[in-house]
Amino acid sequence: MTDNFLVRPVKRQDYEQWLVLWEGYNRFYGRFDATALPTAITQMTWERFFDAYEPVHALVAEKDGQLLGLTHYLFHRSTTAIEPSCYLQDLFTSEAARGLGIGSALIEAVYAQARQAGSPRVYWQTHETNATAMRVYDKMAERSGFVVYRKLL
Amino acid sequence: MTDNFLVRPVKRQDYEQWLVLWEGYNRFYGRFDATALPTAITQMTWERFFDAYEPVHALVAEKDGQLLGLTHYLFHRSTTAIEPSCYLQDLFTSEAARGLGIGSALIEAVYAQARQAGSPRVYWQTHETNATAMRVYDKMAERSGFVVYRKLL
Amino acid sequence: MTDNFLVRPVKRQDYEQWLVLWEGYNRFYGRFDATALPTAITQMTWERFFDAYEPVHALVAEKDGQLLGLTHYLFHRSTTAIEPSCYLQDLFTSEAARGLGIGSALIEAVYAQARQAGSPRVYWQTHETNATAMRVYDKMAERSGFVVYRKLL
Amino acid sequence: MTDNFLVRPVKRQDYEQWLVLWEGYNRFYGRFDATALPTAITQMTWERFFDAYEPVHALVAEKDGQLLGLTHYLFHRSTTAIEPSCYLQDLFTSEAARGLGIGSALIEAVYAQARQAGSPRVYWQTHETNATAMRVYDKMAERSGFVVYRKLL
Repeated sequence: MTDNFLVRPVKRQDYEQWLVLWEGYNRFYGRFDATALPTAITQMTWERFFDAYEPVHALVAEKDGQLLGLTHYLFHRSTTAIEPSCYLQDLFTSEAARGLGIGSALIEAVYAQARQAGSPRVYWQTHETNATAMRVYDKMAERSGFVVYRKLL
Repeated sequence: MTDNFLVRPVKRQDYEQWLVLWEGYNRFYGRFDATALPTAITQMTWERFFDAYEPVHALVAEKDGQLLGLTHYLFHRSTTAIEPSCYLQDLFTSEAARGLGIGSALIEAVYAQARQAGSPRVYWQTHETNATAMRVYDKMAERSGFVVYRKLL
Repeated sequence: MTDNFLVRPVKRQDYEQWLVLWEGYNRFYGRFDATALPTAITQMTWERFFDAYEPVHALVAEKDGQLLGLTHYLFHRSTTAIEPSCYLQDLFTSEAARGLGIGSALIEAVYAQARQAGSPRVYWQTHETNATAMRVYDKMAERSGFVVYRKLL
Repeated sequence: MTDNFLVRPVKRQDYEQWLVLWEGYNRFYGRFDATALPTAITQMTWERFFDAYEPVHALVAEKDGQLLGLTHYLFHRSTTAIEPSCYLQDLFTSEAARGLGIGSALIEAVYAQARQAGSPRVYWQTHETNATAMRVYDKMAERSGFVVYRKLL
């Protein structure tokens, strides 16, 4: 039923609906109330989507004027390729729209954008406990076996 | 014994010794002979270290004029921060110099660079089977619980 | 007669025809024979058009499968704007196609791209002796009164 | 008397003094009162100096803890070089410190930074009526003969 919705680049007019999805996504990762993402970051990220100098992009899934999902991706250098890597950083479907294939359609749309942009590789991260998401991802990509270490400075 | 060696930015004169380390690193990840990294990529990556427009950097560990280890890191955007993330992509110590703390000194030096660059976060990936490396990393950083999916286009 | 030709982003298949225009353009600026632009630069510039991480772009004017003109533009930061500036670096029309309005159509197309990219400003340079070009430019833009100093290092 | 002052990268603690110079510079170009540069732009530009992902940099001239001058420069792509161009966008000396060679020392310091960064070329713009500045520039660089056209979108 992927033809029921449309995947397209975000537009400035989408701001209010995009914000609802973005806040839903952040809530899922525990960023709300006292730990909410600062508004200044949300504003900056939003502006970067429309800044031709920034390699940061957003796609949304829309149906009948309603935004049902979002994905944010960005290009960055890699030491093992001439072309940039494509990092799919965020993916979210509104709760009411789960099960329609919106997540996988958004991922496929990022693949298409990356291909067109000459990028040989799309990657993303998911938490090792997120079995629901991994059921989808295992059909669409390779679980690389790599795990992420991080240091907050 | 970290005071026996020096960690510093790579210089053009380091090319030959750097290349030996880089090839050792690539060999570890199975990139050699038929699957070797193309020379054009190595050349481009090397040039990017010296290109002020490229946010790609290299540090080396040196002792008595000998390069013993390398790390490559790069800055890229993130949707959840105003400041860039620092991705420590490559880390390698020559076999003869293992056990001297070169790997952790290189990581610490990347932390210092990232701090100075205003980046709130350094991260890297390692294979879930690389227990040796993880013993070092577990002391220096947080295993995030995130795993990496990838799609080659 | 601007409807006789089409202005569009360059494609990889355009390479051979684009190269002829690019060499014509370089010849105009004295870059030929002993002073020719090195091939490595032409190759790199060409690749950058297709690299999603690079803010360097090319448009061409095409008629019946023939490329008649080119323009290259790039986005870069400015200290007096949040949004990037758009620098129209190169503009060229093949000799056989002069007088058809191709140059001004290419400039208008860069305006459109910059507007869509959120850039508040397109600028370019021309030599103070290039009266022919300035007759066109004076109709389409403002001669700023600024002159360019440069230092080769 | 260039040894009376020091040229160095800007630091966060310089903000208040830097702002005075920046406002003096903007005033010179007619950006004050009703036409003042919006505060949001000044804030963004300031933050970019400290963002490792942004190729935007600032140097200041300091004497006895007083900032006497500033220069802002940035790197951007060029279609006729593999290495980035260095655009020296802003240069200002406080009125009280004119005639000490601060402007030329700041330009020389940008040359040094660009050289170290592998950039083959520094350039800047000045208004064709600014005879005072051009007397300095003519000693340090080449007046290229190129003039700037611009279009505000």
